[in-house]
Amino acid sequence: MKSPTAILLLHCPDAHGIITDVTKFITDNHGNIVDLDQYVDHIDNMFFMRLEWDLTDFIIPRDKIQDYFDTLYAQKYQMTFSLYFSEDKPRMAIFVSKMSHCLYDLLARYKAGEWDVEIPCIVSNHEDLRYIADQFGIPYYVWSINKDHSNKAEVEQAEMELLRKENISFIVLARYMQIISDQMIQEYQHKIINIHHSFLPAFIGAKPYHQAWERGVKIVGATSHYITADLDAGPIIEQDVVRITHRDTPESLVLKGRDLEKIVLSRAVTKHIERKILTYHNKTIIFN
Amino acid sequence: MKSPTAILLLHCPDAHGIITDVTKFITDNHGNIVDLDQYVDHIDNMFFMRLEWDLTDFIIPRDKIQDYFDTLYAQKYQMTFSLYFSEDKPRMAIFVSKMSHCLYDLLARYKAGEWDVEIPCIVSNHEDLRYIADQFGIPYYVWSINKDHSNKAEVEQAEMELLRKENISFIVLARYMQIISDQMIQEYQHKIINIHHSFLPAFIGAKPYHQAWERGVKIVGATSHYITADLDAGPIIEQDVVRITHRDTPESLVLKGRDLEKIVLSRAVTKHIERKILTYHNKTIIFN
Amino acid sequence: MKSPTAILLLHCPDAHGIITDVTKFITDNHGNIVDLDQYVDHIDNMFFMRLEWDLTDFIIPRDKIQDYFDTLYAQKYQMTFSLYFSEDKPRMAIFVSKMSHCLYDLLARYKAGEWDVEIPCIVSNHEDLRYIADQFGIPYYVWSINKDHSNKAEVEQAEMELLRKENISFIVLARYMQIISDQMIQEYQHKIINIHHSFLPAFIGAKPYHQAWERGVKIVGATSHYITADLDAGPIIEQDVVRITHRDTPESLVLKGRDLEKIVLSRAVTKHIERKILTYHNKTIIFN
Amino acid sequence: MKSPTAILLLHCPDAHGIITDVTKFITDNHGNIVDLDQYVDHIDNMFFMRLEWDLTDFIIPRDKIQDYFDTLYAQKYQMTFSLYFSEDKPRMAIFVSKMSHCLYDLLARYKAGEWDVEIPCIVSNHEDLRYIADQFGIPYYVWSINKDHSNKAEVEQAEMELLRKENISFIVLARYMQIISDQMIQEYQHKIINIHHSFLPAFIGAKPYHQAWERGVKIVGATSHYITADLDAGPIIEQDVVRITHRDTPESLVLKGRDLEKIVLSRAVTKHIERKILTYHNKTIIFN
Repeated sequence: MKSPTAILLLHCPDAHGIITDVTKFITDNHGNIVDLDQYVDHIDNMFFMRLEWDLTDFIIPRDKIQDYFDTLYAQKYQMTFSLYFSEDKPRMAIFVSKMSHCLYDLLARYKAGEWDVEIPCIVSNHEDLRYIADQFGIPYYVWSINKDHSNKAEVEQAEMELLRKENISFIVLARYMQIISDQMIQEYQHKIINIHHSFLPAFIGAKPYHQAWERGVKIVGATSHYITADLDAGPIIEQDVVRITHRDTPESLVLKGRDLEKIVLSRAVTKHIERKILTYHNKTIIFN
Repeated sequence: MKSPTAILLLHCPDAHGIITDVTKFITDNHGNIVDLDQYVDHIDNMFFMRLEWDLTDFIIPRDKIQDYFDTLYAQKYQMTFSLYFSEDKPRMAIFVSKMSHCLYDLLARYKAGEWDVEIPCIVSNHEDLRYIADQFGIPYYVWSINKDHSNKAEVEQAEMELLRKENISFIVLARYMQIISDQMIQEYQHKIINIHHSFLPAFIGAKPYHQAWERGVKIVGATSHYITADLDAGPIIEQDVVRITHRDTPESLVLKGRDLEKIVLSRAVTKHIERKILTYHNKTIIFN
Repeated sequence: MKSPTAILLLHCPDAHGIITDVTKFITDNHGNIVDLDQYVDHIDNMFFMRLEWDLTDFIIPRDKIQDYFDTLYAQKYQMTFSLYFSEDKPRMAIFVSKMSHCLYDLLARYKAGEWDVEIPCIVSNHEDLRYIADQFGIPYYVWSINKDHSNKAEVEQAEMELLRKENISFIVLARYMQIISDQMIQEYQHKIINIHHSFLPAFIGAKPYHQAWERGVKIVGATSHYITADLDAGPIIEQDVVRITHRDTPESLVLKGRDLEKIVLSRAVTKHIERKILTYHNKTIIFN
Repeated sequence: MKSPTAILLLHCPDAHGIITDVTKFITDNHGNIVDLDQYVDHIDNMFFMRLEWDLTDFIIPRDKIQDYFDTLYAQKYQMTFSLYFSEDKPRMAIFVSKMSHCLYDLLARYKAGEWDVEIPCIVSNHEDLRYIADQFGIPYYVWSINKDHSNKAEVEQAEMELLRKENISFIVLARYMQIISDQMIQEYQHKIINIHHSFLPAFIGAKPYHQAWERGVKIVGATSHYITADLDAGPIIEQDVVRITHRDTPESLVLKGRDLEKIVLSRAVTKHIERKILTYHNKTIIFN
């Protein structure tokens, strides 16, 4: 069995001695470092680090670590940091509309035990994919949004209540075709993962495969990113591409794109669950 | 030794019997088809074909083929077609500015005999790369353009004269950092190949690697395309990409991009020399 | 709605006039060619073609086409050919052992209507994945093979009966960890698609990811191929790869490999269903 | 201008406190860490690290660092380590036979200033590529080996003398088609970089593109690795691949492969020059 670990994600202005100081803190208190990845942005002069250590012999109680670290180091170096424990399973909500490929892919991984995560609910604006939620025994909630969007505020209120009730830690938009409200973005900042079916920033907005076909590109892509207030402009987590030819039609691009979308989305979800993503200035640092 | 061949590139509204008719014309006149690739665009209902046949026993004299084919088939099917002979070596001009990587790559291939082509001249607006032209014994012409562009028309006139004198069939812009004049584009329509250092249509215009770095993409690309009057918007011939990380700087992107640019440009040049590219509606059909 | 089509896959020694002759046969009988892809192997001097035509106005009845074509052309050119009709839906059996990822991926595509195919049965040597068959409402048959293989002949007999009863046209081994008997290979020659979890011919046999990790490769792959009597040596249909690093363990390779396996297998299945694969001399020709 | 740095590559059995100890040594002596990448092999329980620090204010003189570090830490942790200084430019010898593509690519990068390296000599068993050495003004040495290999020992003696005289730090085999002697391998252990034109371990030995074509693979590759006594079995540094089809011939594979070879070799050379490669158990750890 894997030992419980603590994970620290931090960034601060670069300075002498940070690594020594922080690793000494872990070592002196009998923590065994199992992973350290650091990166210095020499343009902005910023220091970024992910540190994971075994808690088995660590002498500081878990509920005190945050406080101790804050007092001893964070203030000294003006750090922004997050502390996670491997034993706290993230709780993930999935939002879908009508397309099944990403949902099936996420649930098949979940069922196969690929991810250390709970999925307590699936949310949709359509009934179409309820049968998949049923196949996997996961509660499926539908709130349809009127064409005139007159009930949008209401729907979002209901969704927010569900997310809070289920204590959701992050949201995956698995080809969810609705705009997310500012309130939800605010409450889940850099915790809503979207999959956009193009190689961003090319082909922002609707029907990217049709746009790609119109332009005559020879490669199409997919992009997973955190949702921000700007459409398709949030921090990019992962991208991948596939080669196409003049023989492809918008329809065949949609088909080829599905495989990309599944994989690019699942890679982003994996990194998020493993607490390997740090966002800074609308970009992501993806640790090893 | 390879037998001489004729190459026919054609397109027309799709209709019954085109393939039969055209292949019968070749076969009946003792031509042996060595390659046939066709494609039907079912959206525009257009038919595209590339046909290459061995001329050894072909009974129609070369200088009559164009005329016969035009009379017998092109008018019947409203075809647009081009006829080439493998023995007519294309004559390629290279335009460069200050960066050497694409130029070295092109000349190394030329010298190694990869391409059935002549390179009678290299044109630049700077003296910087003359030593490379000298290394390979190829005439190097420099016309500098004033900062205020006051002599631009003059320079282009001189360039056009050179191209005509050297009987240039197509032009390769090997990181040539100047806008091409409308006149040259007109005279060399779909015969000027550019390499743009981004995955078009993302990051059009200047400093695409810096734009890519700013946006935080996880993959960068390069695109070769024919020059048209619209900046970076001509028919795309070839694209490729390379994965990057948050560790990359604009400078490291420039370095990684160089390898992409060389390869993407040389693949486009290869296809052009082999007469395997047909342009239609600002897109390319790339035959096998 | 798509019109019904006929598909002809053929190969023969290369000769003058084949394309003209065959396309004339279609055109003269009022068939409209919707797709033609041909290829000449100039080393073996063999001609290969896939031809698909619209049957709407075709004046030869379907049940006569095979006979007419055989008499008129196949004998003349010493052709080997296969004739298919788009309206005959292939019937696909899936064989699995204990791993779910390929099975889920295949069934999710099937359910989403990506493939024009029937899946009347799933066969396994273990009960483990019955719940997935149940989720999708597909009959699941289990025949366990004794450790000493004493009942192997019996099991295969039962399997062959099922395949015949269900009129199975091709078999997909979705990480089925058993050797297929010679009899089944004989009856389903080039109709059993396997996914091998390495970039063949590297790492043949058991535990390829462990072999890859031992060797310290920087890229791992997956290969789909038709099963033949030689282990992992049948005609390769599709391959793909993913980049790895020294940080990967055999376990992480297994995880990364799963995504490759799913995609590489599904691409092969797609090509097979579309009748775009011709095998020759233990290789595949994959038509457009 | 870049400040001078020291680079430490080390590995040892994993233990508590290594990172703290080593980084404290740098920090306490006023070195500023500019890069740290570490990796723990949890299977062999080994610790690997690359550490680069600015020497500007470092108070230990350069010629003492090796000694101090050895005494203070290496013995304590049973480390194997190498110390480099950024100001010591590596001296690289290139060995070639008759093919020019890799040589041109290496020299074009060298000339463009991509690498902080000296190239004092090119060695060959043929006169063929002397013109390229001349183009770039680099001494070119030819020792032909008799067909019966009767003068092989002599030739190697002469080569070893040249390497010593020129104080060569590492050797690049740019499609050099001769077996390297054990003595040279011994003296340049993990300092001879070869490019093999296949995706190792597939297609070891002669004519790998022909082997690949025979097997009918859908992807071909190239592999750069350090030379060891076992043919094509040394630690792999870098690999890459390119997609092919049934249309490819052994000749077209050779052409496509050239681009792969150039890029894969140059990536390996870059990593070697930057001292980012550590070899362990016939594998490479490639640091960021």
